[in-house]
Amino acid sequence: MPPHLAPVPLDKAYRLINHGPTVLVSARHQGVDDVMTAAWACALDFAPPRLTVVVDKSSYTRTLLEGSGRFVVQVPTVAQLAQAYAVGTRSLAIDPDKLAHAGVTFFALDGHDLPFVEGCAGWLACRLLPEPHNQSTYDLFIGEVTGAWADTRVFADGHWHFETADPRWRSLHHVAGGQFYAIGEPVAAAGDAV
Amino acid sequence: MPPHLAPVPLDKAYRLINHGPTVLVSARHQGVDDVMTAAWACALDFAPPRLTVVVDKSSYTRTLLEGSGRFVVQVPTVAQLAQAYAVGTRSLAIDPDKLAHAGVTFFALDGHDLPFVEGCAGWLACRLLPEPHNQSTYDLFIGEVTGAWADTRVFADGHWHFETADPRWRSLHHVAGGQFYAIGEPVAAAGDAV
Repeated sequence: MPPHLAPVPLDKAYRLINHGPTVLVSARHQGVDDVMTAAWACALDFAPPRLTVVVDKSSYTRTLLEGSGRFVVQVPTVAQLAQAYAVGTRSLAIDPDKLAHAGVTFFALDGHDLPFVEGCAGWLACRLLPEPHNQSTYDLFIGEVTGAWADTRVFADGHWHFETADPRWRSLHHVAGGQFYAIGEPVAAAGDAV
Repeated sequence: MPPHLAPVPLDKAYRLINHGPTVLVSARHQGVDDVMTAAWACALDFAPPRLTVVVDKSSYTRTLLEGSGRFVVQVPTVAQLAQAYAVGTRSLAIDPDKLAHAGVTFFALDGHDLPFVEGCAGWLACRLLPEPHNQSTYDLFIGEVTGAWADTRVFADGHWHFETADPRWRSLHHVAGGQFYAIGEPVAAAGDAV
C-alpha cells in the first residue's frame, strides 16, 4: 500500500466523485490488467454507495470488467494529466505495451484482486451490478462500491482539501481531446452549517 | 430569450456537462413549474446526445418530470450559488413559494414548453427516455437532448471560456451541504491537437 493512503468510510465514498471529476477505470481478468479514462462517471447512491460509468464497446477494459465483474474507479490528478490522456486514447488491443508507454503502475490492496493506479487521489473498488439492458443499449455500467481509499495529502476527514494541497493534486475535468479543467477554489452558500 | 443566449449545436451539447458540474433540473406539468439541484448528472452519449440524472423520489420536480416526460438540465454559476443551494434544500411540496424565496426566474424558449432558469451558463432541453426499472430501482433518469443553448459570455464556439470570463460565471461542483468547488484553470496534455 502506498504511503499516505487511507481508507475512506463507505458512507463518505461518494464524495470522491461528487464534484464530477474525470476518472480512470481499471479492471483485471484472467491475468490481464487494463485502464482507461472515463469522463462520464457519476455517483448513483449513498448507501450502499453506487456509481455509474459509461464504457464504450470498443474499450478493452470493458472486456475485462465484464469478465471479472469487478473494477476500480480512481481520481487522477493534474500531475497525471499526460497519463490520463494517454490511457484514454490508446487501446491495449492495439498497443500491448500501452501501460508502460503511458507510465501506468498498479499497486495491490489486500482482499481486492484489482489493479489500482498509483498516483491517483482516490480509489473506489466496485462490484458490477449486472444490468444487461443498460450495458448493451447505453454502454452504462452500475457499480457498487466495496472499498474506498484516498491519498491523505488531498483528501482527509471525509473532505477534499484541494485549496491547501499542492496544485498538482487537483482533479481533472475533461473538456474534449487533451483539454481539461482542473478543479478550482471552494465556495460556500451563506448560512450553510455543514 | 435573454440577451447573450445562443444555440449550441447538438453534437457539441455534451460539452456543457462533460466537466462534471452540478446542475439544476427543472420541469413543468399541468401548469406547475419546479426546479431542483442535482450533483449526479452525467453525459451518456454524443449522438443523439443523451444524459443521465439521479432524481430522488422525495423530489417534487420528479413528479413533474414523470408527468410531462420533459425536463431541462442547466448549468448554474458561482453567481447563483445561493439559489442553487436553496432549490436543492427546499421542496415545493413544503414551501409553495419556494421559487420566489430562492430568487428563481424562468424564461421561455419558442417550441419548448419548459421552464428555463435565468442566469445559468448553459441549458439542455431533454425528452425523457422511459426506463421504468432504472427510475424505480436507482432513481436514474435518462434524457435525450432536444435543444441546447449557452450564454455566449462563458461558452462560445463549442467551448467553455471560464478562464477569460468573469469568475462569477464558473460552474459549481458540489461537495456536500452548501459546500462547492468552482471549476478552475485549463490544463492540456502535451501534443494534443484539438
